[in-house]
Amino acid sequence: MKTAHQPIPDKRPHVVVVGGGFAGVQCIKSLRGAGARITLIDQRNHHLFQPLLYQAATTILAPSEIAWPLRQLFRDRQDVTTLMGRVTGVDTSKRCVLLKRGAPVSYDYLVLATGARHSYFGHDAWEAHAPGLKTLEDATRIRRKVLQAFEMAETEDDPEARAAHLTFAVIGAGPTGVELAGIIAELAHRILPRDFRRIDTRAARVLLIEAGPTVLSAFPEQLSAYARQSLAGLGVEVMTGDAVTGCSADAVMVGDRRIPCRTIIWAAGVQASPAASWVGASRDRAGRAFVGPDLSLASHPDIFVVGDAASVSDTAGQAVPGIAPAAKQMGAYVAAVIRARLGARGAPGPFVYRHAGNLATLGRRAAIADFGRVTLTGAVAWWVWGIAHIYFLIGTRSRFVVAWNWLWTFVTRQNAARLITMSDPRLPQAAPAGTERSKRSPASS
Amino acid sequence: MKTAHQPIPDKRPHVVVVGGGFAGVQCIKSLRGAGARITLIDQRNHHLFQPLLYQAATTILAPSEIAWPLRQLFRDRQDVTTLMGRVTGVDTSKRCVLLKRGAPVSYDYLVLATGARHSYFGHDAWEAHAPGLKTLEDATRIRRKVLQAFEMAETEDDPEARAAHLTFAVIGAGPTGVELAGIIAELAHRILPRDFRRIDTRAARVLLIEAGPTVLSAFPEQLSAYARQSLAGLGVEVMTGDAVTGCSADAVMVGDRRIPCRTIIWAAGVQASPAASWVGASRDRAGRAFVGPDLSLASHPDIFVVGDAASVSDTAGQAVPGIAPAAKQMGAYVAAVIRARLGARGAPGPFVYRHAGNLATLGRRAAIADFGRVTLTGAVAWWVWGIAHIYFLIGTRSRFVVAWNWLWTFVTRQNAARLITMSDPRLPQAAPAGTERSKRSPASS
Repeated sequence: MKTAHQPIPDKRPHVVVVGGGFAGVQCIKSLRGAGARITLIDQRNHHLFQPLLYQAATTILAPSEIAWPLRQLFRDRQDVTTLMGRVTGVDTSKRCVLLKRGAPVSYDYLVLATGARHSYFGHDAWEAHAPGLKTLEDATRIRRKVLQAFEMAETEDDPEARAAHLTFAVIGAGPTGVELAGIIAELAHRILPRDFRRIDTRAARVLLIEAGPTVLSAFPEQLSAYARQSLAGLGVEVMTGDAVTGCSADAVMVGDRRIPCRTIIWAAGVQASPAASWVGASRDRAGRAFVGPDLSLASHPDIFVVGDAASVSDTAGQAVPGIAPAAKQMGAYVAAVIRARLGARGAPGPFVYRHAGNLATLGRRAAIADFGRVTLTGAVAWWVWGIAHIYFLIGTRSRFVVAWNWLWTFVTRQNAARLITMSDPRLPQAAPAGTERSKRSPASS
Repeated sequence: MKTAHQPIPDKRPHVVVVGGGFAGVQCIKSLRGAGARITLIDQRNHHLFQPLLYQAATTILAPSEIAWPLRQLFRDRQDVTTLMGRVTGVDTSKRCVLLKRGAPVSYDYLVLATGARHSYFGHDAWEAHAPGLKTLEDATRIRRKVLQAFEMAETEDDPEARAAHLTFAVIGAGPTGVELAGIIAELAHRILPRDFRRIDTRAARVLLIEAGPTVLSAFPEQLSAYARQSLAGLGVEVMTGDAVTGCSADAVMVGDRRIPCRTIIWAAGVQASPAASWVGASRDRAGRAFVGPDLSLASHPDIFVVGDAASVSDTAGQAVPGIAPAAKQMGAYVAAVIRARLGARGAPGPFVYRHAGNLATLGRRAAIADFGRVTLTGAVAWWVWGIAHIYFLIGTRSRFVVAWNWLWTFVTRQNAARLITMSDPRLPQAAPAGTERSKRSPASS
């Protein structure tokens, strides 16, 4: 055995990063050779390439193609220790991170990169019926719900119940909602029809419900209009200006209309993780911590908050969007600030967000891209999107496999990862949380 | 919508196949063009390539690489209807199959290919602590347990508890047990060491516990001896002649010795599915139905039992082994019998099993192969094994991706699918079965 838990006798300043998403991973990468000892804490063992999560949720990619074990990412960084554990709080006076299990981890510098979950605007009961899409588990769950809906319809005798099984409601018309709706429509209208004998999957309804006036409101008007048109072409019923007033096991309420529906997916809003509350930082309505120009907390200059957990306005006073490039820029910036504090070099100026552009896919063959002066639509935009995402995927092998899968679905119109996996009722996974299951896999509880 | 559930007005005789494993799928393939209407019923939506399941359980392959949606397999067979559902029994007088959900399915010919689960020899309580390996869920669960054990050890303060986390017991030294133990040892000794900072994964113990006198007893003595030697070389502690007397959350009992251990995998025995009891057939001690020379039931000539659910002795009186090639041969044979009954051609002679050979891998670079006159060991046998399995994989694409993954692990010594996915406690999956969860995904309950 190597040394056990007693803090290793190590003079190097200790940087603790909580969260192995884009911001946390980039921060650690940028701290290479900074002369610090780094500990990464995450409740999961993998980094997730969230921009492609909707493809894992819609049978195009397999989970293992969009996620990488954090240990593997940093296996060659002897200065990085990875701990899989759940953070329960931060003791800012003792300067240590508290874990649900195991000894507290003391820090000299703390980087909170804990991201966000979806928000139900106070209707948390809706989550049981309208899962959001933030984790691999979410993706597997949504894929299961979508594929099972068709299976249930195939074995359903009652026409009304069958129609409900074949109605899919996606709530929220941001990029995630649009991308999910587009691919579910393609599944129903182009990919699955030949697989079923009793039902015609083309009879399925895919509703994209948006409270605001337009889809993809972050995009320029003409791109938003193009998106709406091409979604309609894929068979998506776009409903804008319609507020969802209820979600249940068998229906979605839109205004005072009740639409029978067995599959609802939530893509309407996000809520930051509790990181801000751990350190008593003031936060915005989405629960994101307000940070200073160097992304540290006014009250605790040795604590930084980055990525979706931080509320940052750039020089122009514009809020920095919750997208991967922004998270990476924050992570790299904080690494530079810490290097400066370590005396390696001068302190950088205040954080400035550089917006590269916005991309959103519409089904498996079209997309829209907004690079400010330049905008693209259709297949051209799709290829730009595909090449950009392949490029940003970590690990050559994944790039290769994902490229192969896309090419495959493109050529054969077949999807690769169309498995329904479920916790087998015979297995204790399905046991009440806190009993069997947590006994056997404490890290999961 | 196409026609709903009323039996389609169709004069063709109706063949109902229960179970989409090797036997069931082969039977349907061999019935192509037989002029029958075929319905395939399975509680899962995919065909599983079980010979590679242990690789999915040990991070070499991803689930989507060894399983294919049944609908996709038969999408071009208009004579085949696939129903995802759970069979609860057979009404032999009304000649129909009873489903947990939906109308009974009547049959003219019934093929029961429901396979087997692992057996705990009456100690069913052990399953909670010693999962077996038969389904994708089993594989994901075992992968989670194995990977989490190392994670837990890394964050464990107490040396004894840490040692228990780093002790892995595989019970049963048949091919599955040997293959699992070999790869877990390689994980600990060759793949993971550089990933961890606090523990030395090479200190992990991998126990292969076998009640009988040898490992791989189905193989000739010199191959069995070679296997034992090469397992030792991989770091596996082979314990033969040792009966397991208990399995708990934190220890395995061997004779009257208690070995602290947090990960136990069961590979010791199988029990046939309840198919035999559905049709009141007499069965052997493993619960397999005794069938006649044409694999039908003496009491019900229109009901056939094939694969691991059937107890068949070949002409030499030797029991047919529960392996994929045997299941495929039975499926193809029954298809021929049914064709004959349909008058297409003469009845085939009694079923004769043709044994091609036995293969077992020892880690990721060696194997043993027994083709009767010819036997192979080491890397040569591994390549024979690899090529054979690549060849027998269904879709071209999977062949390609699996080949690529093997090549990748071979060259880089890195494993591809090292993700821990768990039902997120925030999600209702973890709710008691029969409440939330079953409301939302009835097919899974």
